[in-house]
Amino acid sequence: MKIITISREFSSGGRELGRRLADTLGFDYYDREIISRVAENEGMSERYVESILEKGLPQSVSITFRHSFSTPLVMEQPQTKLVHAQCEVIRSIARAGRDCVIVGRNADVILKEEHPFTIFVCASDEAKIRRCRERATDGERLSDKELMKNMRRIDKNRRNTCEIISDIAWGDAHCYDLVVNTTDWDIKELTVPVAEYARRWFDTHPKAKH
Amino acid sequence: MKIITISREFSSGGRELGRRLADTLGFDYYDREIISRVAENEGMSERYVESILEKGLPQSVSITFRHSFSTPLVMEQPQTKLVHAQCEVIRSIARAGRDCVIVGRNADVILKEEHPFTIFVCASDEAKIRRCRERATDGERLSDKELMKNMRRIDKNRRNTCEIISDIAWGDAHCYDLVVNTTDWDIKELTVPVAEYARRWFDTHPKAKH
Repeated sequence: MKIITISREFSSGGRELGRRLADTLGFDYYDREIISRVAENEGMSERYVESILEKGLPQSVSITFRHSFSTPLVMEQPQTKLVHAQCEVIRSIARAGRDCVIVGRNADVILKEEHPFTIFVCASDEAKIRRCRERATDGERLSDKELMKNMRRIDKNRRNTCEIISDIAWGDAHCYDLVVNTTDWDIKELTVPVAEYARRWFDTHPKAKH
Repeated sequence: MKIITISREFSSGGRELGRRLADTLGFDYYDREIISRVAENEGMSERYVESILEKGLPQSVSITFRHSFSTPLVMEQPQTKLVHAQCEVIRSIARAGRDCVIVGRNADVILKEEHPFTIFVCASDEAKIRRCRERATDGERLSDKELMKNMRRIDKNRRNTCEIISDIAWGDAHCYDLVVNTTDWDIKELTVPVAEYARRWFDTHPKAKH
């Protein structure tokens, strides 16, 4: 089984890169599907699950969360409960044993023992704002400053959750196999060499094959 | 003209990657050759030039250095003078107009306007210690702790010099096109996808071709 995980800054193009990588390599692709499964398992709406998970984990749970997933006091908090449920869904995906690309949701940390090929995707602020506007729904009404503020908040939540459930410094190149800067790239073009990089990694890292 | 610059942590394999990339792509290769040219231009021994440049720039010169290369007081310091001479050699390499790989020496910053493809190479501490021992001359007699201390000192000097002569945060993925983690890679194997990545970059970034 080959697993590629993609951690990414908000609006860096990581999701598109993940989807295209999965297409190119013929791997399964997981992103929002994880939210759907968590919602189904917990009997909650997808929108609710997403809104809670987007907040990240509160700093206060850090020590407890890392040492035990089941302390009753902590488990009562919806964020902690759903992050835990999300871990379980990600582990069940790995148990299915199919080659896959998983975007976000700390899959790199959760599936560490499966030896995934781990990618971090970043971009310049200007490129992220541009991408944000291209996808814009309500983004159109926001100033660059407001967009940046939103992006920073989302990334801060991602960083917090990552650093609470692991020893990984989110975005630090030492914690990933490859860090890709998408600034000035067309993601379709970029997919070609990243897929080649991943292929070569799986070919030369036998541990990752099992 | 296509230029690839490689910035790297000490003992991360960046130099080997650079040499192999140059071989694979048929590019010229510059690393120690730059020291030789600086020594020749300044009428100094290579060993002396190298020992001075290894120290990096002292923090005290930062503002002056960035705003002017020619303030007499600062130019009297051998480190500043030689960093400046090194910049000149790197610019003259670019003026020659041949495709090349340049390892270290802040070529990414100095040649920014030539639109180089910029790579940063890092590795885990364990991998760097292993590589250091494989190349060992006097390294054999040092403990892991002593090796780490030396590596950190050299990287600190590289970081300082980079951050004095530019706005770049040394090692921050946003400041490079690609960050490669060599941990667990055989550099020969790694060269294949990195060369493919660089080829694709030059194919899709017309500005970099001129």
